[in-house]
Amino acid sequence: MTDQSDVRCKALADKIVTAEEAASFIPAGANVGMSGFTGSGYPKAVPAALVARMEKAKAQGGRFAVSVWTGASTAPELDGALAEVEGVELRMPYQSDPVSRAKINAGLMEYMDIHLSHVAQMVWEGFFGHMDIAVVEVAGITEDGNLIPSTSVGNNKTWLDQADKVILEVNSAQPLALQGMHDIYYGTALPPNRLPLQITSPDDRIGVPYLTCPPEKIIAVVPTNSPDRNSPFKAPDADSKQIAGHVLDFLTHEVKKGRLPKGLLPLQSGVGNIANAVMMGLGEGPYKQLTAYTEVIQDGMLQLLKNGTLRMASATAFSLSEDGMADLTENIAEYSKQIILRPQEISNHPEVIRRLGCLAMNGMIEADMYGNVNSTHLMGSSIVNGIGGSGDFARNAFISMFMSPSTAKNGSISCIVPMASHVDHTEHDTHVVVTEQGLADLRGLPPRRRAKQIIEKCAHPDYKPALLDYLDRATASSGKHTPHLLNEALSWHARFLQTGTMQQDSKHWSTRMSRHA
Amino acid sequence: MTDQSDVRCKALADKIVTAEEAASFIPAGANVGMSGFTGSGYPKAVPAALVARMEKAKAQGGRFAVSVWTGASTAPELDGALAEVEGVELRMPYQSDPVSRAKINAGLMEYMDIHLSHVAQMVWEGFFGHMDIAVVEVAGITEDGNLIPSTSVGNNKTWLDQADKVILEVNSAQPLALQGMHDIYYGTALPPNRLPLQITSPDDRIGVPYLTCPPEKIIAVVPTNSPDRNSPFKAPDADSKQIAGHVLDFLTHEVKKGRLPKGLLPLQSGVGNIANAVMMGLGEGPYKQLTAYTEVIQDGMLQLLKNGTLRMASATAFSLSEDGMADLTENIAEYSKQIILRPQEISNHPEVIRRLGCLAMNGMIEADMYGNVNSTHLMGSSIVNGIGGSGDFARNAFISMFMSPSTAKNGSISCIVPMASHVDHTEHDTHVVVTEQGLADLRGLPPRRRAKQIIEKCAHPDYKPALLDYLDRATASSGKHTPHLLNEALSWHARFLQTGTMQQDSKHWSTRMSRHA
Repeated sequence: MTDQSDVRCKALADKIVTAEEAASFIPAGANVGMSGFTGSGYPKAVPAALVARMEKAKAQGGRFAVSVWTGASTAPELDGALAEVEGVELRMPYQSDPVSRAKINAGLMEYMDIHLSHVAQMVWEGFFGHMDIAVVEVAGITEDGNLIPSTSVGNNKTWLDQADKVILEVNSAQPLALQGMHDIYYGTALPPNRLPLQITSPDDRIGVPYLTCPPEKIIAVVPTNSPDRNSPFKAPDADSKQIAGHVLDFLTHEVKKGRLPKGLLPLQSGVGNIANAVMMGLGEGPYKQLTAYTEVIQDGMLQLLKNGTLRMASATAFSLSEDGMADLTENIAEYSKQIILRPQEISNHPEVIRRLGCLAMNGMIEADMYGNVNSTHLMGSSIVNGIGGSGDFARNAFISMFMSPSTAKNGSISCIVPMASHVDHTEHDTHVVVTEQGLADLRGLPPRRRAKQIIEKCAHPDYKPALLDYLDRATASSGKHTPHLLNEALSWHARFLQTGTMQQDSKHWSTRMSRHA
Repeated sequence: MTDQSDVRCKALADKIVTAEEAASFIPAGANVGMSGFTGSGYPKAVPAALVARMEKAKAQGGRFAVSVWTGASTAPELDGALAEVEGVELRMPYQSDPVSRAKINAGLMEYMDIHLSHVAQMVWEGFFGHMDIAVVEVAGITEDGNLIPSTSVGNNKTWLDQADKVILEVNSAQPLALQGMHDIYYGTALPPNRLPLQITSPDDRIGVPYLTCPPEKIIAVVPTNSPDRNSPFKAPDADSKQIAGHVLDFLTHEVKKGRLPKGLLPLQSGVGNIANAVMMGLGEGPYKQLTAYTEVIQDGMLQLLKNGTLRMASATAFSLSEDGMADLTENIAEYSKQIILRPQEISNHPEVIRRLGCLAMNGMIEADMYGNVNSTHLMGSSIVNGIGGSGDFARNAFISMFMSPSTAKNGSISCIVPMASHVDHTEHDTHVVVTEQGLADLRGLPPRRRAKQIIEKCAHPDYKPALLDYLDRATASSGKHTPHLLNEALSWHARFLQTGTMQQDSKHWSTRMSRHA
């Protein structure tokens, strides 16, 4: 378990301790920066040891809790375990853990959901208080003390810079051959000293392939040997395939119209089933030698790299299945030539995203008929995961697409609603909405015409009449720029909370329709 | 009136025609790009001649309308006059004209409200269709045919590039000494050919001081001699002064805490009374040699340039009073050394704003208790002006502030509400909310703590108990990340529409309070 051969630096090898010893250095109430992004590259051992301390404190009637700042989501053994013992005072900037989610929505854990490109700079700017200690997983330590980053970069560069003290986990389960894949940019600064990021193509490297940390800050090194979360890859379902089909048709159409180059533009793809389906669809299409400038490399993207659909991909993290990880490990020499992992402040930087003209494809919870998108909250109040990098990409993309099946929970929820119950992306940032029903191209359309497009193309037939009816009645009786009936705008969500479905009573409905016939 | 001496280029002097002749070149249904930004630099004569044609068509029972794309707002003789005769099919990307507003909200005119940094690139990208003709005001034409930009740059560079045909208005009322003040960047491109913008300080120049246009595209030159709209400057009222006071205290505090340099960071200031009050307050403070990287230079900023509080200001337009314009004209040699006017795609570029770390100060219509901001719609449906550049700055600012008096319409509207009736800036982009009551610093706070801050610091005492009560009841009965009562969230707005005030019936209210006592 404690394979120490990956700590090749003598001075740091001397700091090897157990996870328990390392965790004992973390004071209650500390702001702790942890590595980890979409379930990869998070610390595997120290969190568990920390949880043990928390359980002990709890058993003695006390509370031991810390604030946990990461890159993005981690895994059950970090987010889940800490949340379970109510060991997290404040969590940021993103999570996707079921236990954390439940605690947050029960008011037992505080959570700050932040644009991923904002995190590093705002910590550096001192807006969230001081970072006391960082716990960062690395794949290895070179003889001269450089840190070989792991399967995610996330905010690690900033955590190592900003924390007073650093605990390193050196994970022998991570391929040492990751060395050379990363591009860690050390040129960031606080204003007024910021300089242009000299990236003009996703394959530009502007940094060094390792992380650095002053050795005197490193108080403990913990060897580990555990794989990442590696969630199983699910084959795309029918809805995802249909959504992917609409997206691919749209891209082909844009190329034909001369509004996109034949080689498209750098792809950004959110995480999940739909994203994987789009990737698979691209793999079956005519495209070759594309690029990606995105946050996360999932299985689908690895396949595209392998078959030549993608020439290269820039991201900040992997999020692979076990098979995907095995494939990466086995073919890492090839993949290393095609993949660059960067700090998330660079992978998600508005400057680069706008310059490259990314094609942004992100999932959503719901869109309203005007194109305001909710990516984070169920029924306006309960957090699901967080905004992640979707805002960084949507606002700055060449074309910003949001995708979702048209209904959820067996049809009891319509993902196209009169008014979004929470807004993460405004109408201004939504160019295209896609469901399995179809694709609404909103570019160049004012609000009421957007509404007609979205309802016609994207809404499920079960909800279309009610949406059209709402639009008609709102148009008749409110300001006509963005018509709404304020007493009714959120009634679908309220109905769901009350009755378990957004669908209206059918009698009421037929009355309404005949009145409007 | 037709002073032709400012057309020094012989070839173009030969194209001088009357406004009526020029207007006759504009076909019905055309997409027309017009100059103009915050009431400056808009064409003065051709729109009126176009309106005459529209009136004639109307008298004959027909309709003559065009789509009008500008930089931002223009003036009554353009937006007002065209809207009056229903001569506008689609207006974008910003307007602030009362007649236009009324037509839009009556459903008689279509309007697309767009982030100002998006406009030029999206037109170039072909997302809004083709631009048929541009009508652009310039201050003069040099002997070799270069165009001396007027009091606003806006999208003029892009309009001249993209339009098939160009009509120039050469306005002798604009000081020819504007020459040299502008910095027109011709290095923009479509992806994948975009390059970094090499601006690292607000005073960096990266372009040329004139606009260019292939002479064969210029089909008409119309001499004019009319001043800009030049709205009278209103001295800040009591609320604005208090808001300014809170902002200044906050900036001082941030400097003291070491989170802002002594010379602050480049200021961005929205348009209007509060913005002017903040500028005046800065002028009375200890600050010297500050910079501005903003959209618009108002009277307040001219004063700061004069008294040395500001070293220089970068913007895309002036928006001055008559006195301000007289001051600019009289002292233009001095001001020319201190002012740079750029295309709005540069003044509002996320890349530059984030790099420079602007301090963004924008007005708002309302904020909800979680910090979601509505900048555009009254009661969720009726447009006021538009989002303008507020999103470009808020999302990318070092600190993003939104300011408003805590109430409107003699207290019948609370500008702090349970849920915003429309969202232009999400909680993720709102760092600070300011009213005359106080300033809420939301950095580092999760939603419920944001709500407490905003209610405590910013809400008017008349609405504070109802907001706290809503927050309490919502927290008790919904998901606790962002508590809401969906049946009630927009009831304040609905009540205003029904009763003319957001205030609850006092009897109902006292019952509610005793129940919760």
